[in-house]
Amino acid sequence: MQKTLFSKRMRNMRASEIRELLKITEQPEIISFAGGLPAPELFPSQELAALTEEVMINQGQRALQYSTTEGYTPLREKICERMHSVFNVSVRTEETLITCGSQQALDFIGKAFLDEGDEVLMESPSYLGAINAFRAYEPRFVEVATDAQGMIPEALEAALKSAKRPKFIYVIPDFQNPTGRTWSLARREALIKLADKYQVLIVEDNPYGELRFEGEQIPAIKSLDTQGRVLYLGTFSKTLCPGMRIGWIAAARQLIEPLVLIKQGADLHTSTISQMQIDLFMRNYSLDEHIQRIREVYKKRRDTLVQSMEQMFNEEISFTRPSGGLFSWVELPEGIDSRVLLQKAITQKVAFVPGGSFFPCSPKHHTLRLNFSNMPEMRIVEGVERLAKLIKTPHEFFL
Amino acid sequence: MQKTLFSKRMRNMRASEIRELLKITEQPEIISFAGGLPAPELFPSQELAALTEEVMINQGQRALQYSTTEGYTPLREKICERMHSVFNVSVRTEETLITCGSQQALDFIGKAFLDEGDEVLMESPSYLGAINAFRAYEPRFVEVATDAQGMIPEALEAALKSAKRPKFIYVIPDFQNPTGRTWSLARREALIKLADKYQVLIVEDNPYGELRFEGEQIPAIKSLDTQGRVLYLGTFSKTLCPGMRIGWIAAARQLIEPLVLIKQGADLHTSTISQMQIDLFMRNYSLDEHIQRIREVYKKRRDTLVQSMEQMFNEEISFTRPSGGLFSWVELPEGIDSRVLLQKAITQKVAFVPGGSFFPCSPKHHTLRLNFSNMPEMRIVEGVERLAKLIKTPHEFFL
Repeated sequence: MQKTLFSKRMRNMRASEIRELLKITEQPEIISFAGGLPAPELFPSQELAALTEEVMINQGQRALQYSTTEGYTPLREKICERMHSVFNVSVRTEETLITCGSQQALDFIGKAFLDEGDEVLMESPSYLGAINAFRAYEPRFVEVATDAQGMIPEALEAALKSAKRPKFIYVIPDFQNPTGRTWSLARREALIKLADKYQVLIVEDNPYGELRFEGEQIPAIKSLDTQGRVLYLGTFSKTLCPGMRIGWIAAARQLIEPLVLIKQGADLHTSTISQMQIDLFMRNYSLDEHIQRIREVYKKRRDTLVQSMEQMFNEEISFTRPSGGLFSWVELPEGIDSRVLLQKAITQKVAFVPGGSFFPCSPKHHTLRLNFSNMPEMRIVEGVERLAKLIKTPHEFFL
Repeated sequence: MQKTLFSKRMRNMRASEIRELLKITEQPEIISFAGGLPAPELFPSQELAALTEEVMINQGQRALQYSTTEGYTPLREKICERMHSVFNVSVRTEETLITCGSQQALDFIGKAFLDEGDEVLMESPSYLGAINAFRAYEPRFVEVATDAQGMIPEALEAALKSAKRPKFIYVIPDFQNPTGRTWSLARREALIKLADKYQVLIVEDNPYGELRFEGEQIPAIKSLDTQGRVLYLGTFSKTLCPGMRIGWIAAARQLIEPLVLIKQGADLHTSTISQMQIDLFMRNYSLDEHIQRIREVYKKRRDTLVQSMEQMFNEEISFTRPSGGLFSWVELPEGIDSRVLLQKAITQKVAFVPGGSFFPCSPKHHTLRLNFSNMPEMRIVEGVERLAKLIKTPHEFFL
């Protein structure tokens, strides 16, 4: 084989050692805070079995055939209605594109907008899967200082000013992955204002927004967009189930049309039958009631996690108390390396994701992410206890 | 918005006017030879309804959860067994990656291997979807002269000699799209020999290989590969149904591993439930028997199409007589532009795909592709009759 077997972009695509390490954590005896998995006991498998029969009997020939790249129109219509009723976002059906989960939306956005060296501005820290998706298109990542309210406007403006070719600002404003933080309305407004001033796009990734446990829904950034510069990403992975791989992009026609072309070349279209199944679920059952059940279960687990950390972690350790979503973010005393802690934790049969990988530029290795959606409360308590014991002898983890 | 809103690669991604024109042909009163659609009346929708219930009851939590990027292991094992029994290809489970149809495999291969200006060698003509998938990575396409036996070895060697950075040779050796041609064993052997000599990869796309109506199966090119340089693409789209979007890549570990990383960033994994459904179909039913039914139906339709063309087309028109697959390829007298013919044909409520788009470099506009899998015989006869009438007054279509 010639020396340059792979394309240049593959230099950036390395298997993460952490991912390899986390494979161990799939063993059932491990208490894992690591994945971003929804609670499988809440999946509506009985309902989906029944309605699949209905889809197959009434529309089998259509459900199993090739279909349009844009997606199944009745589902796209329902998505528009829901974005409006829940997040105050007004988009028309033709401004949506169904994707294989919102991960695919991230890949397509990278492909459509990023040339090598273009700048992507992100919260610090941000979603690892977005960093990986964009990395294939060789951008320069810019981390913007972020606090409990969202990106700090002064830091964002400074970053925009010094950027050479800023393409878009990527944000997860609701119950962010990995921190669990939610942007205030003021910060959302400041973001839109700055994006307008500096003429850049915003990618608003909102997989967790419907999983609010308390407090008022804050309008989506897309709902504040008067210039058509926000690409909004949604998904059924957290509100229904991830295994079907159904997400979407909502954006102005000018932005959606090139993304449709990309999808045409990338995989023709998303599974017809999965789209019909979700459409029928939303007709035959109440998605609201289903999400309400998820919220109740996750809220208890969040409460258990936060209370356990309050009781068992010493005061040098800080952590977030998210009002929704799947994750809490922990900051250990500086100098403790959570990668080393993980190796030790695995021997005690408890796992989490070290935080460094969520920083595209300047990893802070004294951080870690804890998932609370995927485990019963007893195990959460037990897991925090094991972690707390380990951290109490921190000298081992200093690098 | 700034001037360079989209990435540079988007310059190559234009909506095809033909695709727009063909949208008209979806009306039921049109006799359409245009699409590449399987016959939906043969989809096993009853069986899939029954086994979906089984999947949901026994494995619902797993079927609806996130799963591994590589794919569902029992399905990958069955794919390996089948590739061996049908095509004499020996690969291990870990040498496979499940994709969203083989279109996604084409996209990933472009992403993994192609830098701007790298050369992709293709049959002339070749599959439009592959051209579109690769185009996003800005290669230089090289058309290799191809006859009824496959690529002409002398032409291939000349192309390899004069190429600056040849990356791979893309071929569809069985019942090719768009021509319906099948490569002889001698040409397959010559291809492997030249690829070894010039140290390039081969991408063997085989969506139609199982749909043989007569004659002996010819071994897959992958089965002749001693150097691990063939990436083999398979799919269930033509043997079961396309709507589930399940295909695969089989290749050496060294080549599969980077493709797994790409998939991780591109969409995490393929639908868990669709993979389990196909796995269970192959356990509970006979895929062989199912494919046999498809072959019988398509063979009759192929016979009808070829006989109708023999009877109704004049001798200036040549066409292929494929031994399998979905397509026949028609060459009109030079000077007739099939795009103009299509416009006229649509007024007569008959449609096809003009051939020009299947040539990545030098379009031959007096060609066209006819699909025979998607229509009952009566309509095929009627469609050919309408086409023949139109072509009999060819002066209108000269450009």
